[in-house]
Amino acid sequence: MRAYLSRRYHFSASHRLHRGAYSEEQNRATYGKCNNPHGHGHNYIVEVTAGGQVDPETGMVCDMVKLDEAVRKNIVARYDHTNLNRDEGFRDLVPTTENLCIGIHKMLSPVFAAGGLGPVDLVRVRVEETENNSFEYAGD
Amino acid sequence: MRAYLSRRYHFSASHRLHRGAYSEEQNRATYGKCNNPHGHGHNYIVEVTAGGQVDPETGMVCDMVKLDEAVRKNIVARYDHTNLNRDEGFRDLVPTTENLCIGIHKMLSPVFAAGGLGPVDLVRVRVEETENNSFEYAGD
Amino acid sequence: MRAYLSRRYHFSASHRLHRGAYSEEQNRATYGKCNNPHGHGHNYIVEVTAGGQVDPETGMVCDMVKLDEAVRKNIVARYDHTNLNRDEGFRDLVPTTENLCIGIHKMLSPVFAAGGLGPVDLVRVRVEETENNSFEYAGD
Amino acid sequence: MRAYLSRRYHFSASHRLHRGAYSEEQNRATYGKCNNPHGHGHNYIVEVTAGGQVDPETGMVCDMVKLDEAVRKNIVARYDHTNLNRDEGFRDLVPTTENLCIGIHKMLSPVFAAGGLGPVDLVRVRVEETENNSFEYAGD
Amino acid sequence: MRAYLSRRYHFSASHRLHRGAYSEEQNRATYGKCNNPHGHGHNYIVEVTAGGQVDPETGMVCDMVKLDEAVRKNIVARYDHTNLNRDEGFRDLVPTTENLCIGIHKMLSPVFAAGGLGPVDLVRVRVEETENNSFEYAGD
Amino acid sequence: MRAYLSRRYHFSASHRLHRGAYSEEQNRATYGKCNNPHGHGHNYIVEVTAGGQVDPETGMVCDMVKLDEAVRKNIVARYDHTNLNRDEGFRDLVPTTENLCIGIHKMLSPVFAAGGLGPVDLVRVRVEETENNSFEYAGD
Repeated sequence: MRAYLSRRYHFSASHRLHRGAYSEEQNRATYGKCNNPHGHGHNYIVEVTAGGQVDPETGMVCDMVKLDEAVRKNIVARYDHTNLNRDEGFRDLVPTTENLCIGIHKMLSPVFAAGGLGPVDLVRVRVEETENNSFEYAGD
Repeated sequence: MRAYLSRRYHFSASHRLHRGAYSEEQNRATYGKCNNPHGHGHNYIVEVTAGGQVDPETGMVCDMVKLDEAVRKNIVARYDHTNLNRDEGFRDLVPTTENLCIGIHKMLSPVFAAGGLGPVDLVRVRVEETENNSFEYAGD
Repeated sequence: MRAYLSRRYHFSASHRLHRGAYSEEQNRATYGKCNNPHGHGHNYIVEVTAGGQVDPETGMVCDMVKLDEAVRKNIVARYDHTNLNRDEGFRDLVPTTENLCIGIHKMLSPVFAAGGLGPVDLVRVRVEETENNSFEYAGD
Repeated sequence: MRAYLSRRYHFSASHRLHRGAYSEEQNRATYGKCNNPHGHGHNYIVEVTAGGQVDPETGMVCDMVKLDEAVRKNIVARYDHTNLNRDEGFRDLVPTTENLCIGIHKMLSPVFAAGGLGPVDLVRVRVEETENNSFEYAGD
Repeated sequence: MRAYLSRRYHFSASHRLHRGAYSEEQNRATYGKCNNPHGHGHNYIVEVTAGGQVDPETGMVCDMVKLDEAVRKNIVARYDHTNLNRDEGFRDLVPTTENLCIGIHKMLSPVFAAGGLGPVDLVRVRVEETENNSFEYAGD
Repeated sequence: MRAYLSRRYHFSASHRLHRGAYSEEQNRATYGKCNNPHGHGHNYIVEVTAGGQVDPETGMVCDMVKLDEAVRKNIVARYDHTNLNRDEGFRDLVPTTENLCIGIHKMLSPVFAAGGLGPVDLVRVRVEETENNSFEYAGD
């Protein structure tokens, strides 16, 4: 009996969409107001979905305390109240929410693979940038 | 690296669920209070999900400015502050939210197919009729 | 110890903002797209706030079951799944949400005054027309 | 043209996560604060997703009035304002939200199979325990 | 320049509305399904509103870190994942949300009066029991 | 019959809480993680409340189209997708949400006083910084 747990985490950060290899005009054409100088910011919501068999003894699909620890240590503590453009993961990558989503998935995948959360898979990472705008990545 | 963008749009409209070929009793039995004479209305939320490869240069899955233009021109401008029963798309079709969802999908599909939004697919259209009631259509 | 209870109710209705005594141009200038022919609609949320002494025995400010009955009978059953322009209360009154709010307050005031809900006042009626738009009336 | 309807229902209940066959220490290690004596509670939201062909006559995927009746009778009336640990379905099962989700799926499956809702499948049951925590079960 | 800060905190708890001095019938008549044996529960949201002059140097009305510490220590740690009926504050008081609201106000008042949060007043405590049901207390 | 209209507007911006006249230690002690170098950001929601007599002809309290124009021109266009610390209004003022709230009130007051919105007052400006954190200013 495979079930899914989705859990939401919150952080606030700033970013500016800007690609160094592009001219100012190309940047403006590509990113619009998200390319405004000096950046802007969002209250990001990260939803992590884990899937696995429900343990017949505990009735749980995943050790949620350990999931919280992993996400808070690896994701929230890293990004909360920061400027994403200064993060080393975005040194050569534009900090779009697509790339943020993929980056979070890459950081959490080994945590799931290491087995500490139980026999459960990372199914999907979803990031809400605003209440009208969200992104998902489910791995390759 | 295939990712998904979901974006929400809003419009307010009225409708009445009523099928001309049915008797009054059949209409009442089929649609209940949604068949009340003179109609009623909703704040509809349309969520469009697009999927595609994340562009390695721009870090984006879809040209969101163009997606907004397409949805605002084809969907929001058409339906906002209108009576759906008067829309030509519902001349021979009951304006249920299922049919609305399919109609929006059919209007947006050629926009995606034309390629102007980038190498991205229309994955799904979801319409919330009330906060407890939503519908999805993902094509055939 | 005066405390306040606020309780939310939901109904879906259509309306058209249009004043018979105005020309088409005046109507259009005054109400904009809300004057579109054939109407449009909303999911309305009504929040009723009651205030009074907390009963030292029951620990309650108001008989909530009776409040629900009163609002459901007088307000929700009257407006839900209807066209507000057809309501007799709007025969000579434009069904703006301001007027709806005042109308609800006038219908609930005698219910509170009759004492059946306990020694509690009607403090305020608030109506949300959309998630970005709300109106309040607290009596004269 | 297969479409999906998702509908949300609400109930408030209490539970305590505790497995009789475990020692106090094991219970505490497994369930953390959810094992606190005397229980705690939540406002649960149940979202039922039904999928099927849109009826070309009615424009609907499912008889929503009958779906509401089935969920209210089988699920909401059973759990609302109760202590889940006292429910007979949890006599030998820990009332985690995973198990609740599976239990709701099992109770609704025969309702869909009996055909009274129309030619529509039970696609998924999703339960929100808090605004940051939700679970899904889609059958085996 | 007097401004207001409102801050929301969350806890999950169970309660049963029952007054020992009442007969079973009186309890049932007074509290309805909230009197169901074995209790039920909610995700409570507490909103604390503080008001004061905006400090011309810091631009802040209140030391939010200290406010968080005070509310988390005095309120959230006390009630989260508990059965309110077992709390000593409700030994002789029915744990209605009105009484909970007043109790929280009484516990926070001395924290504000002690001055550690800055020259700021406790303006109001508001508790949401469900998304349709909230209570406020602003002191006597 | 005095009624109130509240209307919500949205913008995304970044800020860093930092006072030039303070040492690094004082800044850190005063603003905590909000003082992190390079800033962070939020999805701000601005709610403007206007109060006045309901016009007996139009049934409206305020010309909402003109209110929207005024707020979009003076507030949203100014702050959306910017870094608040670079705004000239925050050259000598820390961009706390308290100060932002007061600043918005000061910019909108003359718009109301000029009379173009009708015989209506600016009652209150409320700014949500996160879903758990909001600020209000109602003038002096």
